Amino acid sequence: MHQHSLHHHARHLGWDRATTPALTLAPGDRVDVHCADASGGQITPDAPVDAVAGLSAERANPLSGPLYVDGAEPGDALAIDILDIHPSGWGWTAIIPGFGLLAEDFPSPHLIVSRHDAQVAEFLPGVRIPVRPFIGTIGVAPVEHGTHAVIPPYRTGGNMDCRDLIPGARLWLPVAVPGALLSLGDTHVAQGDGEVCGTAVEAPMDVQLQITLHKGKGPPSPMLDVPATPLRNEHQRGFCVTTGIGPDLMTAACDAVRHLVDTLCSRHHMRPEDAYCLISVAADLHISEIVDAPHWMVSAYFPNAVIAY
Amino acid sequence: MHQHSLHHHARHLGWDRATTPALTLAPGDRVDVHCADASGGQITPDAPVDAVAGLSAERANPLSGPLYVDGAEPGDALAIDILDIHPSGWGWTAIIPGFGLLAEDFPSPHLIVSRHDAQVAEFLPGVRIPVRPFIGTIGVAPVEHGTHAVIPPYRTGGNMDCRDLIPGARLWLPVAVPGALLSLGDTHVAQGDGEVCGTAVEAPMDVQLQITLHKGKGPPSPMLDVPATPLRNEHQRGFCVTTGIGPDLMTAACDAVRHLVDTLCSRHHMRPEDAYCLISVAADLHISEIVDAPHWMVSAYFPNAVIAY
Repeated sequence: MHQHSLHHHARHLGWDRATTPALTLAPGDRVDVHCADASGGQITPDAPVDAVAGLSAERANPLSGPLYVDGAEPGDALAIDILDIHPSGWGWTAIIPGFGLLAEDFPSPHLIVSRHDAQVAEFLPGVRIPVRPFIGTIGVAPVEHGTHAVIPPYRTGGNMDCRDLIPGARLWLPVAVPGALLSLGDTHVAQGDGEVCGTAVEAPMDVQLQITLHKGKGPPSPMLDVPATPLRNEHQRGFCVTTGIGPDLMTAACDAVRHLVDTLCSRHHMRPEDAYCLISVAADLHISEIVDAPHWMVSAYFPNAVIAY
Repeated sequence: MHQHSLHHHARHLGWDRATTPALTLAPGDRVDVHCADASGGQITPDAPVDAVAGLSAERANPLSGPLYVDGAEPGDALAIDILDIHPSGWGWTAIIPGFGLLAEDFPSPHLIVSRHDAQVAEFLPGVRIPVRPFIGTIGVAPVEHGTHAVIPPYRTGGNMDCRDLIPGARLWLPVAVPGALLSLGDTHVAQGDGEVCGTAVEAPMDVQLQITLHKGKGPPSPMLDVPATPLRNEHQRGFCVTTGIGPDLMTAACDAVRHLVDTLCSRHHMRPEDAYCLISVAADLHISEIVDAPHWMVSAYFPNAVIAY
């Protein structure tokens, strides 16, 4: 078993099976990866809101890698054990015009820079979010030739923004090309299911992984084994849950989030932009019901404990 | 404050503002309601699987009510505090041909009758599900004239199948017609988010509610305040999470569930029908990501602790 390190220079901006590997690993090896934040360093701890308006999409979501895994072939499963994640002490959350679930409702740029220790992020005055660092983007190269954008996730993984890609979790990815070509980035300090405003608490982070190979066991799409976690702090005060109901899950999700924005504004005298960002980093979108045709229900779960009354 | 009771005779099979009220309540009153199971008594504790094949859809999801609330007017909020729910000791879970998220994959009827105490349901040999009784269907009459089917939920509530309609929760419904005309039924012993096979652990139950009226505060769609709950037993062993990724949330949800069925079969040597039902009652569908256009991700969370290794 070898220990590798991947530093700042090994970054790329698309999924492409033709990208030259930054490192070669044997199954069982470990690797330390210094991941960039989703802006690729465009937003800094003292950035003004203008930094959001001026963001270059071409530089967004840089990936560290790719890692070539010896012996990996299409049809295999690559198992990635997330051994550790070290958050950086600060993070940013933004409304980027034209992006996010309620892009039409929120046309203006907005930026929240927050500080955190190992337990808690001070998101807004009186609003404390449990720190739960995870990897927002991790995947292997797709089989199709050419460069594929980093924003959408694929069946080979990528920008899944799954809040349970935490230390102790094992991610299973289907290998699609020889060597797998694993890349990662877009590390998050905290996020709710759905990442509705389009950003989490975004921050650069150091991540330690161990990679193993399981011949012929490739899953149809990414799969996670998530460890037991202690009672989430927010459970101790319960949730405020809003809903969207209708024949389209996307519309229902929009409705649930829109309703939660309004509720937080009226209950806690928040600004809509702050509420929207807070939902993105702390509330979870659940499909409560998806079988009672022709209407489905999406629920947005807001943990009351993040707001100090 | 008065205490009322609603018994077996007060049942109806559709949402209709013209239905004669079974009881009239003043705001602040309490009511005990004996709810039928979703089959309306067609499935009994010793039913054979033929009972599923012979189910009459016309008798499904009977509602207790309606309750006329004095002074309720369109635009008001009806707040329903769920004071207590008494499960019956047995329940049923079925695959009903033509119904459920994976109806095409599971064309044959299937029935699981289970027993439970106050804590745990013995769902299958070695498979124990935490008992968490809740109200599957609860709503008020819609403003549109005529009889509206009981299967889909509406913005006035109904068959929401939201697993957090538990004792201690407060449900907020928008009043659409004078008197509100509240009805409920379809009580569940346990269910995962999504209720993917189309049924939960279904059982008749006694429910105690308190109704209050909040003038002019009607929400745009149902909303819940959910109490803090102790650490769910299943958290102690972590989750197995499968995913579906693509441009359509419904397809992604199907993919995630289909993948979880296969995983439970291969990991635990389960029959696909049992796995599908188990997912419906114990696994949660989350929208992990809904902003990374053009692909979204739905995750199915399976709590490992429900299976004894």
